[in-house]
Amino acid sequence: AIEACNQDPGIGAIVVTGAGRGFCAGADIKGFNRSIENRESGNGQRSDLDPPPRREEHLAAFLRRSKPLIAAVNGPSIGVGLTMTLPMDIRIASEKARFSMRFIRVGITPEVASTTYLAQIVGLPNALDLVLTARIIEAEEAVQMGLVNDIVAPDRLMDEAMTVAGLIADNPLDCVMEGKLMVHRHMVEQDIDKVVAEEDRAFYKVQAGPAHKEFVSAFLEKREPRFNQA
Amino acid sequence: AIEACNQDPGIGAIVVTGAGRGFCAGADIKGFNRSIENRESGNGQRSDLDPPPRREEHLAAFLRRSKPLIAAVNGPSIGVGLTMTLPMDIRIASEKARFSMRFIRVGITPEVASTTYLAQIVGLPNALDLVLTARIIEAEEAVQMGLVNDIVAPDRLMDEAMTVAGLIADNPLDCVMEGKLMVHRHMVEQDIDKVVAEEDRAFYKVQAGPAHKEFVSAFLEKREPRFNQA
Amino acid sequence: AIEACNQDPGIGAIVVTGAGRGFCAGADIKGFNRSIENRESGNGQRSDLDPPPRREEHLAAFLRRSKPLIAAVNGPSIGVGLTMTLPMDIRIASEKARFSMRFIRVGITPEVASTTYLAQIVGLPNALDLVLTARIIEAEEAVQMGLVNDIVAPDRLMDEAMTVAGLIADNPLDCVMEGKLMVHRHMVEQDIDKVVAEEDRAFYKVQAGPAHKEFVSAFLEKREPRFNQA
Repeated sequence: AIEACNQDPGIGAIVVTGAGRGFCAGADIKGFNRSIENRESGNGQRSDLDPPPRREEHLAAFLRRSKPLIAAVNGPSIGVGLTMTLPMDIRIASEKARFSMRFIRVGITPEVASTTYLAQIVGLPNALDLVLTARIIEAEEAVQMGLVNDIVAPDRLMDEAMTVAGLIADNPLDCVMEGKLMVHRHMVEQDIDKVVAEEDRAFYKVQAGPAHKEFVSAFLEKREPRFNQA
Repeated sequence: AIEACNQDPGIGAIVVTGAGRGFCAGADIKGFNRSIENRESGNGQRSDLDPPPRREEHLAAFLRRSKPLIAAVNGPSIGVGLTMTLPMDIRIASEKARFSMRFIRVGITPEVASTTYLAQIVGLPNALDLVLTARIIEAEEAVQMGLVNDIVAPDRLMDEAMTVAGLIADNPLDCVMEGKLMVHRHMVEQDIDKVVAEEDRAFYKVQAGPAHKEFVSAFLEKREPRFNQA
Repeated sequence: AIEACNQDPGIGAIVVTGAGRGFCAGADIKGFNRSIENRESGNGQRSDLDPPPRREEHLAAFLRRSKPLIAAVNGPSIGVGLTMTLPMDIRIASEKARFSMRFIRVGITPEVASTTYLAQIVGLPNALDLVLTARIIEAEEAVQMGLVNDIVAPDRLMDEAMTVAGLIADNPLDCVMEGKLMVHRHMVEQDIDKVVAEEDRAFYKVQAGPAHKEFVSAFLEKREPRFNQA
């Protein structure tokens, strides 16, 4: 679904939410059991939890290069239900959402590049707290530690997410994509010469494009710029 | 003392606190003077502050690979008394604790990998404030900037630290150790492909172990899992 | 101006503020237009926005190696008016200041190593919010997300900035410079062995210098140390 949005030139930002009452309460534990049984019976059948033969691109890398993603968290966001939101760009939660890095409690370990993203999102002390205790937190604590950008009443969740998506979609898409990817790639890049070289490359590329020209024209004509026109 | 705990399979997390009234108020200044006198008299005696002949492992690396460490800060945490807590996993402070990156005021510079850890714990602006002004802050400001996870009344400090240690020690130790080490190693790793590859390695290793199996059994039998059994 | 301060041994920290009513409200949009016209008319004249022939040192690198910089933000801090403050060490804002990563709205992309610095200053979620929405925030929100260290009434701005500068300038300059540069260089360095080796190098260099000796003498004589004496 996200890939289809990435291909559609009319879409500037993507809101992701959970079906029905919840967001994503982790993986299916019966699936875990099937996996153990398969491994132990040695029946040669590949289970969902065995290493995939060869992945073309992991989820974190795919989310990184996608159009801006706003997670509207409407219920429990536990385990992979939490880690899959971390490489997304904005997280907005219903007051009823709950969060947990549940992995260790379940006898597994964190995934989806969360051992990097979590520290950049909530800081190292909160990241270690969530990973090592595996405790469940409410939306209020999640916003205090920066795990979600904002919390709202459940019936306002989608409106709020769509408003933020609209703010982003009003901006020229090529600049948005360069800006998004640079922040994700540079957030922990220690070589600032490399960062500046990459910023220069992006700058001179988009500055020669139609969006910057439209902005300057609009400014001189004292009107709002119109970006992303077909 | 920490190394003994690391070797003891019955221990899941370690609480570190100060003896007597204080945590650790920096290094011994008379030792500083002895070092200067020795250097100037050229008596060939090695002082505590000369570079050690060859260190097998520095303190930050040792704390990184240790079992989860909870610092219960009961007094002044100044200079090395602060930096030695930064690679620990959780810091809880008494309301009477005080904190300072005192190094520069004393004519030396920060150590114990604090020039990386401090920025990841309190963010770059607070890190630069603490390092460059060398000012002393109270527990209240320390919790606001994230330098400690929580502050409590002095007589509740050890109870609180033991409660957090207990939460961690209830989780399966092999998962805890993989999770702890990955967060420390990946917090500023810029290559997410490398992060995901390492997460996959840890995941498939522990997922084949007894803790995950015990969790699934407990879930299907509707009981609490029992990890870390001899 | 900053380079002159860097050369002056009597100066320990530098306060940067805006002339007149404002700090720096981004680049000159008429200059943007001239640049587009020049490019399109192909008149061979170099515009301000073409890539410079060869930069000896970019702005972020220059600010990194300068004496401690305190930005006193007295008005709009937009686009390059914001990004040029990010590699500075302390940001203090007037209650009337406003902030925006305006780049994308204008058809260009962020610069001055801001795609690294912003995430280290305000955390990844706030960094993505500011870059992707390009919205303008007030001083109150800026201090909440850590973009500025403190906000004060407009008529107290310079006093407050000078007070912080004075705290830093009281410390021995060689230690301040080593500490500043190490925090900037190590904030996202993933190799802690390299960090500790660099910290050791700085420690043993300054510990053999006059500042540490003066501190120990002052301590033993129960007086305040006098650093940075000619």
